[in-house]
Parts: sequence; C-alpha cells; structure tokens
Amino acid sequence: MIRKLIEKIEQTGAPVVVGLDPSLAFLPQHLIEKAKRRHEEAVYGDDELEIIADAVWKFNRGIVDEIADLVPAVKPQIAMYEQFGIPGLITYQRTVRYCREKGLIVIGDVKRGDIGSTSAAYASAHLGRIQFEGIRVPVFGTDFATVNPYLGSDGVKPFIDVCNAEDKGIFVLVKTSNPSSGELQDVLTQDGRPVYELMGEKVREWGELSMDGEFSNVGAVVGATYPEQAARLRELMPHTFILAPGYGAQGATAQDLKPFFLEGGKGAIVNSSRGIIAAYTKEKYAKYGPEGYAEAARAAVTDMIEDLRSVVF
Amino acid sequence: MIRKLIEKIEQTGAPVVVGLDPSLAFLPQHLIEKAKRRHEEAVYGDDELEIIADAVWKFNRGIVDEIADLVPAVKPQIAMYEQFGIPGLITYQRTVRYCREKGLIVIGDVKRGDIGSTSAAYASAHLGRIQFEGIRVPVFGTDFATVNPYLGSDGVKPFIDVCNAEDKGIFVLVKTSNPSSGELQDVLTQDGRPVYELMGEKVREWGELSMDGEFSNVGAVVGATYPEQAARLRELMPHTFILAPGYGAQGATAQDLKPFFLEGGKGAIVNSSRGIIAAYTKEKYAKYGPEGYAEAARAAVTDMIEDLRSVVF
Repeated sequence: MIRKLIEKIEQTGAPVVVGLDPSLAFLPQHLIEKAKRRHEEAVYGDDELEIIADAVWKFNRGIVDEIADLVPAVKPQIAMYEQFGIPGLITYQRTVRYCREKGLIVIGDVKRGDIGSTSAAYASAHLGRIQFEGIRVPVFGTDFATVNPYLGSDGVKPFIDVCNAEDKGIFVLVKTSNPSSGELQDVLTQDGRPVYELMGEKVREWGELSMDGEFSNVGAVVGATYPEQAARLRELMPHTFILAPGYGAQGATAQDLKPFFLEGGKGAIVNSSRGIIAAYTKEKYAKYGPEGYAEAARAAVTDMIEDLRSVVF
Repeated sequence: MIRKLIEKIEQTGAPVVVGLDPSLAFLPQHLIEKAKRRHEEAVYGDDELEIIADAVWKFNRGIVDEIADLVPAVKPQIAMYEQFGIPGLITYQRTVRYCREKGLIVIGDVKRGDIGSTSAAYASAHLGRIQFEGIRVPVFGTDFATVNPYLGSDGVKPFIDVCNAEDKGIFVLVKTSNPSSGELQDVLTQDGRPVYELMGEKVREWGELSMDGEFSNVGAVVGATYPEQAARLRELMPHTFILAPGYGAQGATAQDLKPFFLEGGKGAIVNSSRGIIAAYTKEKYAKYGPEGYAEAARAAVTDMIEDLRSVVF
C-alpha cells in the first residue's frame, strides 16, 4: 500500500494529506440549519447527534469534492466522529467510502493499540475483514491506520499481519506533534538515547516484516513541530515513510519539514487539518465566507502545496 | 466516581470486573442461528455484521442478567465491537446502557489518547456530553474509560477535565498485562528507573487533579501478570486505584494479585474476560454447554470471587 501512496504523491506532485477533522466550532451554520430542516420531524433522543453528523457529512463531501484532484490522501481523525456517537461513526464510514470512490487514499487516524488479540480486532475493523461463515466482510475499510506502540510488539504485529494479507499500511506513533509529547517520548534511556529513538528502531524492525518496494508498509508518525528529532529519525529509519502532522495550525512551517524528506522529496507526507478545512475562518481566506468553506479549503491546499514544493523538491 | 466504584465493591464483597469482550470464536451457535432467522430477509451489504452484532447483544444480555448481582462492574472492550463495524458499535452502546440500568458500573476499555483537542473529543464521546445549541447530549456514557499515555499530559488532561465536570474516572495504562509490554514499559531511564515507574509517577501527579475521597478518579492499569512491578507501583501510587487485567485466561492467579491491594483489600479491582464469558468452553464448566453459557459465566464469577477473597481480604 505504501507504494500506491508514493505513486499518488508523484502523480499529484503533492506530499500532502488533508486531515478531515470536523469540529462543531467551525461547521458553517448554513449546513447545520439545512440538517435541522432535514431532521425537523425527529427532535428527541439521539437526534441532536443525527443533525450534527448529517451536517458533518455534507461538510466533508464539499471539501472532498474540491480537493480530490489536488492531493493523494485524506486523514479523517476518528475521534472527531466518535464524539458524535453512532451517527458520527456512520458519517466516518461514509466519508471513508466516499473518499475511496474519489480515488483518494484514506489514512484512518485511529491511534489504536492493545494486547495481541484485541489489536487483531482493531486491525480487522480498520484495515481488514471479518470472516463469518466463509464470507469475508470489510468493515471500516481504510487504507492506512495510525497505531499506538505503548504495548510493544504484540500490540503492533496483528496490524502488520493484516497489512500483508490485505495490502494495507500503518503509521506507528514515534514522536508526536503535541507540546507534551516529550514527557515520555524524549526521556533518556540508560544508553543515552531518547525513547523516540528506541521506538524509531522498533519501527524499522517492524518495517522489515512488510516491505513494499523501497519503503515499508509500516510507517512512522513524527510531528512536523519537531524537526531536530525528525532529522535523527530520518537517518535511523531510511526505509520508513513518515506521516508528519503539525503543519499550519500547530505551528510548523515548510522549512521545518525539510529534514523529514529524503533527497528528491521522497519519504514523507505532511498533514494539515484545521489549516485547510477551517481555512474560511482565517483572515487570509475570509473572503470566501462560510458558504465558500470548500473553495477556501481548495485555496489553502493549493497554497500549502506551493509552500512545501519551494522547500522539499 | 471512584468512590462509587469502591462502594459497589464493598457492597458485593467482590473486587472483580467482568470483561465483556465477545469474540466470534466462542459465540454459541444457537445465538447466531436465532440472529440469522431474525435477519433472514436481509442478506446483502452489511447484514453479516448485523447478524453478528445481534447475536453479541443477546449473548451479553444473557451474561449480564446472570452476573449483575455478583459484581460491581463490567468492562466492555470496544475493539471487540468495533470489529463488527457500526452494528457492533450499536451493540456496544446498548450493552453500556443495559449494564448501567442494571446498576453496574461500566468501564469502557477504549485505550484512547491523542493530542489535546482530539483527546477532548474522545473524552466527550466516552465520558462526557456534546454541547449543541444549549443542549448537552450524552454519547457513549460509560463511567470510566481507559487511556493511553504515550502522548503525555496534554493527551490525558482533557479526560481529567471531564472526570471533574461529570463525576467520571479513567484508568491510565502504566504496566500492561501482555507479554511484550516490557519492550517500552520496562526500559530503564537514565536515573535507573523503568518507564513504568515514570508513568506511575505521572499518574500519581495527574491523580491529584481529581481526588474523590481516599482515592483519585485517575486510576492505573497494571497487569495482573506482573506482580513484582505491581508491588513497586502500589508503593509509588498510594491513592491510585488499580485496574488489574490478566487474571485467568492470561495466566495470573489470586496469589499474583496480593501486591495490588492495600491492607484490608482496598485499592484494586481485577478483570477477567474470556475466563468468565467463555467459561462454558472450558472443561471445568463444560457441563453447562453452549445453551448454558450464561450460567457457566455465573459459576465462573462465583469461583473467581471466592479465589480472590481467599487471598485478598
């Protein structure tokens, strides 16, 4: 699957993934009003969640229609759907399917990870299929999933098995983009190396179990906000593709992203979420207004691609 | 919320939580056949998942009806529902609601954790409510959730905020029960302490933010399979309630659980999943047969409580 992602990056000339992380805070009011009208006869129980989930689905579809020709991939953050319960998760699933129909590669940002048998269930849910009386039923059907490595190999390997069986991929958290990621990840171990380097080595080892051309289906998450750590990790994991969140809203610039890439611009893909999908709320793209949120997203993606190209290629 | 859990443990005299982690491997065939009959006119698309999820719901209800008077709490593992997609998650939600109606405390074993704004969404989803136009809508509505600390404080604190606002609790992964948990968690840091001690200290600190009587609403997950590490952690975190998975199917015995408890049997709750809910597949309870899976579970819970009491109190 990593080979497919790399091909799509080359086709689009854009090492960019758009994070589909909808939040009530920036859902345009006209979408909520329309959803309310569609649900006006149903106002009790879970219906607030149905209204929101409906508006989120229309929001996503608008964005995806505008950006599908510009980028290779999208990354829906499942938490932003889970917060709206079952209706939210139905919207997650519809979004995943719609994006795949549009030819986009879908990275499910699920950060799952558990003991072996439980990780196997998560791997089936997000990347694999459930076997039932001789039928193999796909579930959420994303192409990649993000994985939390706190439980060690037996929490990660069930995902790798599914990567090999179904041609899928994962990105394992190594050095995350958030301010407090260093509390555990930067702790120095007895041989003087920080924990994130140790995890980088594990990811390199796990990667050997699922090579797909020059790179492995086992990638790493390294926050764009930590360029120095990325430089070290890039060296340590030469065949590991890096998913770098943190550009834009979290503060990383194109210059910060240079160390994530190998010569010629290979080896990484950069995520932006709010910077794209909530672009219409920023001064720079305010002229589009809430009704033009999707066009604003397109403009923001175009600017991001240009910004990265100036540094990366 | 931890105070409520402790009260329920005292009422039942059972520091035991039953893991509701259904798997196709031990779902009794008669439940699947009944579900197939209920869905016989619907055989395309997601319907295999509907059939399974329906059977799982009946399976859970049967177990819960048999054990609700014996134990204070249940712990559904969301992965085992997520693997069956949206229908599975509907069964998760029904199970949570049914257990709460029966007076059980529900620990959602979700192991979520992400950057701050995303953890806030997970916290709303599992412990909190979504605010929408002045209405506050509960979502999955569990009493506790398990949390993965790989991202540090800003991934954990949004959960603590919800604990304080809604009287809920969390259990943070410190030393997990699986064989490879030591790959990261046992790594020695420069001051000679293993990572799990460092995390134990973080949990103690976080715990101060949400005290509820003698213990904190911020608890810790420490695998019953690691009694030596538990002894050290028990010392390090005197006001932290411990959730100990790994008894039974994963190999821990009552004797292993002694160091998890304080004098008088306070301070911990022990989980068993397959050992209870799949008891009918074990030789010891085979006489109940698949039709008597729920009675077998009751017998296994009764034996587990007796086994623990002999050591703990």
